[in-house]
Amino acid sequence: MSKIKVGIINVTGYAGVELARILGQHPEIKLTSVTGRSAAGQTLAEVFPHLANLNLAITTELGDVDFAFSALPHKESSKECLPLIQGGTRVVDISADFRLKDPTAYPAWYGFTHPAPELLKQAVFGLPEIYRSRIASAQIVANPGCFPTSAILALAPALKAGIIEPEIIIDSKSGISGAGRTLTLSTHFSEVNEDVSAYALDGHRHLPEITQELNLLNPNQAVKVTFIPHLVPMTRGILTTIYSTFKTGKISRGKKKKDELLTLYRDYYKEMPFVRVVDFSPHTKYTLGNNNCLIHPTTNPGGDKLIVFSCLDNLVKGAAGQAVQNMNLMLGFPETMGLEAPAIFP
Amino acid sequence: MSKIKVGIINVTGYAGVELARILGQHPEIKLTSVTGRSAAGQTLAEVFPHLANLNLAITTELGDVDFAFSALPHKESSKECLPLIQGGTRVVDISADFRLKDPTAYPAWYGFTHPAPELLKQAVFGLPEIYRSRIASAQIVANPGCFPTSAILALAPALKAGIIEPEIIIDSKSGISGAGRTLTLSTHFSEVNEDVSAYALDGHRHLPEITQELNLLNPNQAVKVTFIPHLVPMTRGILTTIYSTFKTGKISRGKKKKDELLTLYRDYYKEMPFVRVVDFSPHTKYTLGNNNCLIHPTTNPGGDKLIVFSCLDNLVKGAAGQAVQNMNLMLGFPETMGLEAPAIFP
Amino acid sequence: MSKIKVGIINVTGYAGVELARILGQHPEIKLTSVTGRSAAGQTLAEVFPHLANLNLAITTELGDVDFAFSALPHKESSKECLPLIQGGTRVVDISADFRLKDPTAYPAWYGFTHPAPELLKQAVFGLPEIYRSRIASAQIVANPGCFPTSAILALAPALKAGIIEPEIIIDSKSGISGAGRTLTLSTHFSEVNEDVSAYALDGHRHLPEITQELNLLNPNQAVKVTFIPHLVPMTRGILTTIYSTFKTGKISRGKKKKDELLTLYRDYYKEMPFVRVVDFSPHTKYTLGNNNCLIHPTTNPGGDKLIVFSCLDNLVKGAAGQAVQNMNLMLGFPETMGLEAPAIFP
Amino acid sequence: MSKIKVGIINVTGYAGVELARILGQHPEIKLTSVTGRSAAGQTLAEVFPHLANLNLAITTELGDVDFAFSALPHKESSKECLPLIQGGTRVVDISADFRLKDPTAYPAWYGFTHPAPELLKQAVFGLPEIYRSRIASAQIVANPGCFPTSAILALAPALKAGIIEPEIIIDSKSGISGAGRTLTLSTHFSEVNEDVSAYALDGHRHLPEITQELNLLNPNQAVKVTFIPHLVPMTRGILTTIYSTFKTGKISRGKKKKDELLTLYRDYYKEMPFVRVVDFSPHTKYTLGNNNCLIHPTTNPGGDKLIVFSCLDNLVKGAAGQAVQNMNLMLGFPETMGLEAPAIFP
Repeated sequence: MSKIKVGIINVTGYAGVELARILGQHPEIKLTSVTGRSAAGQTLAEVFPHLANLNLAITTELGDVDFAFSALPHKESSKECLPLIQGGTRVVDISADFRLKDPTAYPAWYGFTHPAPELLKQAVFGLPEIYRSRIASAQIVANPGCFPTSAILALAPALKAGIIEPEIIIDSKSGISGAGRTLTLSTHFSEVNEDVSAYALDGHRHLPEITQELNLLNPNQAVKVTFIPHLVPMTRGILTTIYSTFKTGKISRGKKKKDELLTLYRDYYKEMPFVRVVDFSPHTKYTLGNNNCLIHPTTNPGGDKLIVFSCLDNLVKGAAGQAVQNMNLMLGFPETMGLEAPAIFP
Repeated sequence: MSKIKVGIINVTGYAGVELARILGQHPEIKLTSVTGRSAAGQTLAEVFPHLANLNLAITTELGDVDFAFSALPHKESSKECLPLIQGGTRVVDISADFRLKDPTAYPAWYGFTHPAPELLKQAVFGLPEIYRSRIASAQIVANPGCFPTSAILALAPALKAGIIEPEIIIDSKSGISGAGRTLTLSTHFSEVNEDVSAYALDGHRHLPEITQELNLLNPNQAVKVTFIPHLVPMTRGILTTIYSTFKTGKISRGKKKKDELLTLYRDYYKEMPFVRVVDFSPHTKYTLGNNNCLIHPTTNPGGDKLIVFSCLDNLVKGAAGQAVQNMNLMLGFPETMGLEAPAIFP
Repeated sequence: MSKIKVGIINVTGYAGVELARILGQHPEIKLTSVTGRSAAGQTLAEVFPHLANLNLAITTELGDVDFAFSALPHKESSKECLPLIQGGTRVVDISADFRLKDPTAYPAWYGFTHPAPELLKQAVFGLPEIYRSRIASAQIVANPGCFPTSAILALAPALKAGIIEPEIIIDSKSGISGAGRTLTLSTHFSEVNEDVSAYALDGHRHLPEITQELNLLNPNQAVKVTFIPHLVPMTRGILTTIYSTFKTGKISRGKKKKDELLTLYRDYYKEMPFVRVVDFSPHTKYTLGNNNCLIHPTTNPGGDKLIVFSCLDNLVKGAAGQAVQNMNLMLGFPETMGLEAPAIFP
Repeated sequence: MSKIKVGIINVTGYAGVELARILGQHPEIKLTSVTGRSAAGQTLAEVFPHLANLNLAITTELGDVDFAFSALPHKESSKECLPLIQGGTRVVDISADFRLKDPTAYPAWYGFTHPAPELLKQAVFGLPEIYRSRIASAQIVANPGCFPTSAILALAPALKAGIIEPEIIIDSKSGISGAGRTLTLSTHFSEVNEDVSAYALDGHRHLPEITQELNLLNPNQAVKVTFIPHLVPMTRGILTTIYSTFKTGKISRGKKKKDELLTLYRDYYKEMPFVRVVDFSPHTKYTLGNNNCLIHPTTNPGGDKLIVFSCLDNLVKGAAGQAVQNMNLMLGFPETMGLEAPAIFP
């Protein structure tokens, strides 16, 4: 029995190389092709010495594969994926190009006209905890952004249960690798080390994606999201802190409330292997290199606010790990296959 | 003319040693006495080699000084300050022991009965941007906490102008030095490096202080504060992100709003040398070692939220620098004396 | 077929918890018992949330196991291992208690009299790249220190080949986790972050271990080692830089020398799955969470010096990973079993 | 009395901006002009918000100044300095362009032919602890490199006293800001954070500078230097560790040796305000933002090796601070003027 041949388009960014790391250990597929642009012609080991064991050359063209991941930036990704899709290859796209259902969102938020708006309906938003069965049969899976993953998972049980008002504050803290491998002053070590700052104050591109999905969770109520991302001086990890207000009478007052919240969240995620609802303040460090998302729902001393903390590794559950989780569902493998390794701590 | 003799009680914590650094460069006072407990008998240079030039011995008793700072922890600080106060010495207390006006807040939040509740009314909250003239004539100045300083300065212009609703979310990100020099697992390098987490989820001790002062800024409206502090892996710096909702009709809609906010804030702080209202997202790094607080008031894309970012060095404007600023006012020196050095960047 | 039952004595230090992480993924053994002192009575998940999947309770006593690891500090380790050894259990001791062949070295370097000096001869130094076959049949394996592992692997091919003079300088740079989980000022975040310093200037305890093993590699020549360890502000990783002088005529001059060195080192390690001899300057980051040791032998522009760089993860190849590698050899499993995962990068 | 007008060529690199920070606080000069290329037209405050108080515009041309610093890269710096020099302006050049006495070293090490080799003899190497009086009267001062400053100061007393053999190992550990503000993968946060590596294995450009100066210290003995720089994940700071061998009979054996070394070094530097000879292992953190160099000379347990540790802030004593120290000497100000602030700790 020959293994399924899998390829990665643009292996040289952080999502791409993390895909290669995870796929290289997957027991049921074979990573046979990885592409890059400036690095084409080099071996993967030359560019990423930690992957020397994979023995792969970086090429310009993907070649013959059974399944493809795209880790290209937005706009370029859809352009390169289209021929594959038309040829029948199943694709997980890590870029934003198939995440938004509304084609007009692309010129507005990403500055380009979508080349195949008819595919947006067909593509499935690749958050397995919400869309597991649809992912299984999809041809195109749009892998969610790192911030949206942390925010949607933190809010889904509360929105589904209808216990919160539509005003939602999402304050996210991200490690620097989220900004990618492209050289910029805002990822230059001496400028961001020993520093915290907010960015994208005029609206981060993940906002329409968050809003779209939160609204789908509870179509009776349009959310009003304020989302501010911050950069913190560490390589990996996102902690998202969410503030919203309970609807009156939807959840008990007093000490029981925290237990009710834990129960609500644990019930919601009881079949989801990568979401851990915890009764303590989660640390990003508990997810380093691992596909888990830790969620802690709680309330303020006054008891009128829902406060949720969620944390994950932005390159794993926030990108490559989730992409492999999607692949597992699409190919009928156990959802956790190749993703079982615990976090590296400390 | 002999210089004013100044002493520091408990020089061996981070607030204390930072006081020594700043006071050692002050042109009009002489740091003559520094106390410590376990380090008593050693020279300051032995414990803190960067202060070798000060040539001071750490003693158990303060000795004869004209002016005193206490950098002891709460409870101990008031106990040690009382004899000084009774003897007529003017004191800046960096602990929380004279910050809260309500004596019952001490057992509730700090676990001890205040030894001199009658002094709480007399003590002045040492935020010079609010209480400058009262500080000048005070005998006891209660130096604010680091989080309260960042939050109150970020909110004062908006609350004074009555443009926001009482619900306020304060999401703070602090460097690890804010947790002090006492050894704990949560300040152990390998546990907090490459990590972000929230703490004090059941209510941080700075909450009553923030609430007290925000209410005093606008006595017509009792604020409802939700405050969550987070630890980020850097030594110094606090970035506070504040979310609240504009009252209808109190500020213009659309593009003009951001300019109006800048104008409102700049007018409010126009005579305040250490508050810089900026039109960009501020970085904690711009304040390293320096007494400035950078504030950026803005709004969300929808325009209904006031969002304010403020950042400062938790050991300077958040502790020792502000204490010296208070001393300058109390002793009739220029407010900026000894505090002019710009931040160290990068 | 029931799996081999394995236990860890003192799971709560960094070597212990890293052992638990690795053993929890090993396909052929079952981690059945983990002990701790202050943490006894808690679950492993409460103390180390990243290991929640292991479902283990921390106990005071090891219970019935087929194979044991000790991650206790020196002196305590031998005391606790002795009954196990006498009862016939095979043990990998991560402490220094069975590493030194000369019993008088223990009072001199570690301040205690060895409780079973007769076992020192029997114990095998657990560096598989040198002692593979002896490890396979040993009852007691003394897992090497992190610095010795990096230094001995970097020097073994050169010493075996007799190409260098006996004077050797070893300059090591270690992440902070090497100092353990015990709280000290020198592992307090704010004191070591943004800092580099040397320590143990009067002689580090790993010196006798390094000297013992280097001398065994070439009994015709007693080495003279100068070893200085440094702390650098990162959690994991050791980079060791080694300086020595070529013997005249033992290796060619000029450009060929670097190739000759690479060939010599690659031949030496050609059957060793965890040593990678590379032709570039290795980064500690290429080994994060992984059992590899990367070695780069080169020379100075003048060509008279052997310079070797070696790097590894101090908690994996420098401690727990190597311990599992030893267990694999002792139990007849493939040497790499459970240790194949590549490093986490970036 | 009008103050001396001072200008900085290329203020936008880290040495340039650090010069601006220090000069902006100097009581006897006025920083009147700062140049930049891509940033020309912006204010200094826009590019470097921590220097908002300086109120300076970045221009393409230096304009009329009495004294100039060049913080341009090598090759460009001499080209831009030549007209100034010919016009009689006194210059401190922070680049390498006037450091080397041998014109042929420039094509060999820096890849360009020196445009004014006749000036190399006239230029004074700007290490005040060695060349103080010559600096005072120089027109061109070549500010030393950061690594050479740390290495030469650590070795000067021993070489002058003739107590060591010519073979010298220099192992330096530098923060990332030493690599400048130009964007490269090796200064990209996610690539260098949590990492240590050596670089410039084929010979770092600071090697000829170190060798030149060490040879001048003791013309009777040509040194043989091996120099390996390493990058450590912090913004500022260099720790240099030096290994050499005592000449027989030149220094006493046993415990007295360390005291003799301290005395030798302290005598040598007794009139030098910025060199502190200490009896403990120095930390780079003790020099953050400050012009000190801390030096600790000691020996190995065997007593035959001289081991010296020196540390400094690469942007202050290793660049801008030393440049201002040179300016003070050249203009007849006290050597420490504007440089007295202690380090920021922690």
